Amino acid sequence: MKLATLNSDSPDGRLVVVSEDNTHCVAADGIAPNLLAAVEDWINVAPQLLALSDALRSGEVKNAVAFDPASARAPLPRSWQWLDGSAFPQHGELMQKAFNLPPIDSGRPLMYQGMSDRFYGPSDAVPFLSEKAGIDFEGEFGVIVDTVPMGTSAKDAMAHIKLIVQINDWSLRAVAPVEMKTGFGFVNAKPACSMAAVAVTPTELGDAWKDGRVHLPLHVEWNDKRFGEAIGDEMEYGFHELVAHAANSRELVAGTIIGSGTVSNKNYADVGSSCISERRAIDMIDFGEARTPFMSFGDTVRMEARSTEGQALFGPIYQTVIQN
Amino acid sequence: MKLATLNSDSPDGRLVVVSEDNTHCVAADGIAPNLLAAVEDWINVAPQLLALSDALRSGEVKNAVAFDPASARAPLPRSWQWLDGSAFPQHGELMQKAFNLPPIDSGRPLMYQGMSDRFYGPSDAVPFLSEKAGIDFEGEFGVIVDTVPMGTSAKDAMAHIKLIVQINDWSLRAVAPVEMKTGFGFVNAKPACSMAAVAVTPTELGDAWKDGRVHLPLHVEWNDKRFGEAIGDEMEYGFHELVAHAANSRELVAGTIIGSGTVSNKNYADVGSSCISERRAIDMIDFGEARTPFMSFGDTVRMEARSTEGQALFGPIYQTVIQN
Repeated sequence: MKLATLNSDSPDGRLVVVSEDNTHCVAADGIAPNLLAAVEDWINVAPQLLALSDALRSGEVKNAVAFDPASARAPLPRSWQWLDGSAFPQHGELMQKAFNLPPIDSGRPLMYQGMSDRFYGPSDAVPFLSEKAGIDFEGEFGVIVDTVPMGTSAKDAMAHIKLIVQINDWSLRAVAPVEMKTGFGFVNAKPACSMAAVAVTPTELGDAWKDGRVHLPLHVEWNDKRFGEAIGDEMEYGFHELVAHAANSRELVAGTIIGSGTVSNKNYADVGSSCISERRAIDMIDFGEARTPFMSFGDTVRMEARSTEGQALFGPIYQTVIQN
Repeated sequence: MKLATLNSDSPDGRLVVVSEDNTHCVAADGIAPNLLAAVEDWINVAPQLLALSDALRSGEVKNAVAFDPASARAPLPRSWQWLDGSAFPQHGELMQKAFNLPPIDSGRPLMYQGMSDRFYGPSDAVPFLSEKAGIDFEGEFGVIVDTVPMGTSAKDAMAHIKLIVQINDWSLRAVAPVEMKTGFGFVNAKPACSMAAVAVTPTELGDAWKDGRVHLPLHVEWNDKRFGEAIGDEMEYGFHELVAHAANSRELVAGTIIGSGTVSNKNYADVGSSCISERRAIDMIDFGEARTPFMSFGDTVRMEARSTEGQALFGPIYQTVIQN
């Protein structure tokens, strides 16, 4: 099943069920007004949405309309909680090697809480105050959970993962190291993220969802030039383990989004990277200096996870950086 | 003007206007259903709430009922964003001295984003999984803002501070240093906070609100024994500066709560502390070892800011720690 959110008078938008190929959708706001409400009552709502999805698949739905994943909103235009991990060890290793940092060896997942009151839609222009902030994208995957009780095990957490999403975690690199050094984590360095239009159930991902990881390449283009297509399977901790980690001392509210951190692979020399910061780290290692600049106003970034069969998945993120 | 939230079918509760002495209230949900909605439309809603508050003050309101600040909910039982500072330099100095840490000298306010999907009411029992987590309270003040545009100056931020609240920022000390060391900040170490019942406008605080600081002692009792009464005026950065810092790279959503961090004073030997962790740091400095334990299941903490005239302000927080 695939779900998306169309624009409406509500800040939470209007829920639709999307066809397998992302070309059609049908209103689902008679079942739940928006995706947040759907996830809050998933046990009752999901069977109805699934029935509608099946009907759409079999052509039984009369009121289906054309769907454009570029013009939809984020599946969750806002949510109560966004916890972002950094679960790809290759990314950490490159950053440490380049900047001569000690390894972060806490024996537990890395995670910070980011702003969740706004997620940009896949085609929204994204405003920043200054290019000097070191504007960067971070291509990643995320999951949306229903209510997760405090102390839930990783094994039990798996069943709480209801939807998978594709995220661009906008990052400001000039301030990130300053904030990391305080130990308090990122606030200024992490403004609002963006989400691709379509949220996909684990079942719908099929073989691409395994061990709590998304086994798909995330194609990233910067100013329409190939930047990378790292695969989501090299997470040190699966999403179920990230969910359990987050729920270690709190009940996770329904609609919580948990992020993987920037997708990064061991064979980065072949597959490239999912953020400029990592590319600059590779520059440092290769040339002794960071040669790749950060983004300028007017720059674009495109991100799209693709299946090997070229099947439509989450839809593209394709955004322009603008001056606020 | 004083506002509070009573229990209702809505997760956001029901808005009431509270009398100056916290003994009576009148329903205000005809003006705005809840406090979050009120702050989202403050420019239109505030004059109506003020008129109701004036009427309550002058005895013109017929449908006033008894109000008990202990039985109300948090003014915001949930909000889209909670950003907590650590603005009292004395607290930082004691922690650094005790644990032989380098000073955090970033030349900017310390701040992390914490969970905002749940704020406990002032008398709610607070569940934790284990006493081994190092259960601690943190007495602090906070402010609630309306929408703050990205890049707002500290001077302009002052006018966005609509309400002042009193907060207990529950903290788990066994994991806090581990999370700080990663640079990613607190997730497991910072479960849900609690709020005293009454949110107070800056005007209502009178002389006690000055330079973006709350010039009031925060009386803290642990198991009904005096623990401290540090004063809120020694913040290195005023709340307006914390708000501007938070809005440095993001628009702050209406209803954002910004915290001061644990209230701490230079004359801590006389006024005591607002969290156990600081007391343990003082133990370390005085005796070479932390003699004060963290909280046990069944322990209580009471927090109440009082004016010099003994005037009722935010109402007490009085909570029991329980096993989840």
